[in-house]
Amino acid sequence: MPLTVVGSIALDSVTTPAGKAENALGGSATYFSMASSLFTKVHIVGVVGRDFPQEHVDMLVKRGIDTNDLQVAKGETFRWTGSYDGDMSVAETHDTQLNVFAEFNPQISEASKANDFQFLANIHPTVQRGVLQQVRHAKLTFMDTMNLWINTEPEEVKALLGEVMGIVLNDMEAKMLTGENNLVVAGKKILEMGPKMAVIKKGEHGATVVMDGQVVNLPAYPLHNLVDPTGAGDSFAGGMMGYLASHGEVNFESLRRGVAHGIVVATFTCEAFSLDRLKVTTLEQVEERLAEYRNMLDF
Amino acid sequence: MPLTVVGSIALDSVTTPAGKAENALGGSATYFSMASSLFTKVHIVGVVGRDFPQEHVDMLVKRGIDTNDLQVAKGETFRWTGSYDGDMSVAETHDTQLNVFAEFNPQISEASKANDFQFLANIHPTVQRGVLQQVRHAKLTFMDTMNLWINTEPEEVKALLGEVMGIVLNDMEAKMLTGENNLVVAGKKILEMGPKMAVIKKGEHGATVVMDGQVVNLPAYPLHNLVDPTGAGDSFAGGMMGYLASHGEVNFESLRRGVAHGIVVATFTCEAFSLDRLKVTTLEQVEERLAEYRNMLDF
Repeated sequence: MPLTVVGSIALDSVTTPAGKAENALGGSATYFSMASSLFTKVHIVGVVGRDFPQEHVDMLVKRGIDTNDLQVAKGETFRWTGSYDGDMSVAETHDTQLNVFAEFNPQISEASKANDFQFLANIHPTVQRGVLQQVRHAKLTFMDTMNLWINTEPEEVKALLGEVMGIVLNDMEAKMLTGENNLVVAGKKILEMGPKMAVIKKGEHGATVVMDGQVVNLPAYPLHNLVDPTGAGDSFAGGMMGYLASHGEVNFESLRRGVAHGIVVATFTCEAFSLDRLKVTTLEQVEERLAEYRNMLDF
Repeated sequence: MPLTVVGSIALDSVTTPAGKAENALGGSATYFSMASSLFTKVHIVGVVGRDFPQEHVDMLVKRGIDTNDLQVAKGETFRWTGSYDGDMSVAETHDTQLNVFAEFNPQISEASKANDFQFLANIHPTVQRGVLQQVRHAKLTFMDTMNLWINTEPEEVKALLGEVMGIVLNDMEAKMLTGENNLVVAGKKILEMGPKMAVIKKGEHGATVVMDGQVVNLPAYPLHNLVDPTGAGDSFAGGMMGYLASHGEVNFESLRRGVAHGIVVATFTCEAFSLDRLKVTTLEQVEERLAEYRNMLDF
């Protein structure tokens, strides 16, 4: 089944211990759509400026992504500048220029609304809620968020949690949202806030999945060559939702399998700057690495 | 096959968000021997003072542990006072009184030397080396260490690494020892220092196993009720070595399975203060939880 993602499209300048990239393609909806399009038809909803290189749109289209809801607005594309040090678990932001993204008010076409799988990538929770009101009928609605909104808009985030079916967030955000240090307990508390599913991303430590009273820890795939973690979380969510949409059924078993797919897809993103590795990744390569991941856990 | 552990036996006073324990049984050799004795015959080598309660010795004996190499020295037993906050990943030490442990010079009986499986729990690396010289013939020699020795005795730790077959250490220690932030790379660098096997403990994030060019991440078993993590690492090592000794063969497959056993055994230790939960844990309970752990990873 096809899915829709609403989120940011950016031009990133990133420095890591492995090197740097300037004005390279980034953004949550970009990583998510490239990851999920490995598994299913994807509609991307977002906004770019008139400076946005056509080659990036061509890349999305080449992957079969529907770009009819990609608005081109007067002004410049969202730009982010950041760096990673040490174990690269946290980015340091040096500069953020929202540009056309500041006024982003997603207008979702009938075709994109009609999809049964809807992902609200990290945007202001009020904007996410506006999107959610347009896609209430969906079979699965999943949201992401970030520390900024948990800090500045906690009531909006909590209201949204009462309306979505699932949330994906990182370990720090899960602790911040619940005030709990134990992620198992935090995951259960998040479900008490509304959603049926919580997926906690833990970077190099994998992910924790909470649904139907079950809690599962899945480890990371061992990555020898971490070049740039930017977009790993969005690629993870894209791999997870893409698998779920291609599978059709949403239950504990398929969610866990989706998370395993997300973990594996994210490793490709981390092996190069921007989408340089993910854009040439094939479903066959994902399945090969997934088989290695399963073997790793077969003891 | 039987195994021998050489390490500390202590009386701990511990405070965690869940409560406190005073002058409770602790020490690396204690946790290790109680964990490993679930799987095989264990000889404990250590020293206590004349104040050491007989009930603790009785508990070891009741578990079938050979205490013939448990010296009783003139003076007081090693005492540690510490606390945990937040996610309880790191202990804060408030007081350490080495007492009789300061002069610990392990004299290993012929019976304990004869065992094919030998574990050098965390002690000064020079003392560990003295032990290793007595057990060179062993089929498997494994060491633990700590940040203190990596900082103050790096040359001794590295010399020892050239002589043992395996090392178990935590993530911070692996990074400190190798200067690497990526644990996959750190694990491989440790093998370049000598041992054939490196097992990196990651607390609530499970463990990483490196052997024969393979790297495996195993997640933690999801623990809802973390009361006191003291001794978790030693229980993990005990579960791992106990399984290996009971299995007999040491190879990548059995090491990985041993690590899975260690992960599961350590969860029992964390569910209560001191050895209160571990001492009443049965092999049947371990196997039941291991089956749940396997199910968790079967997606």
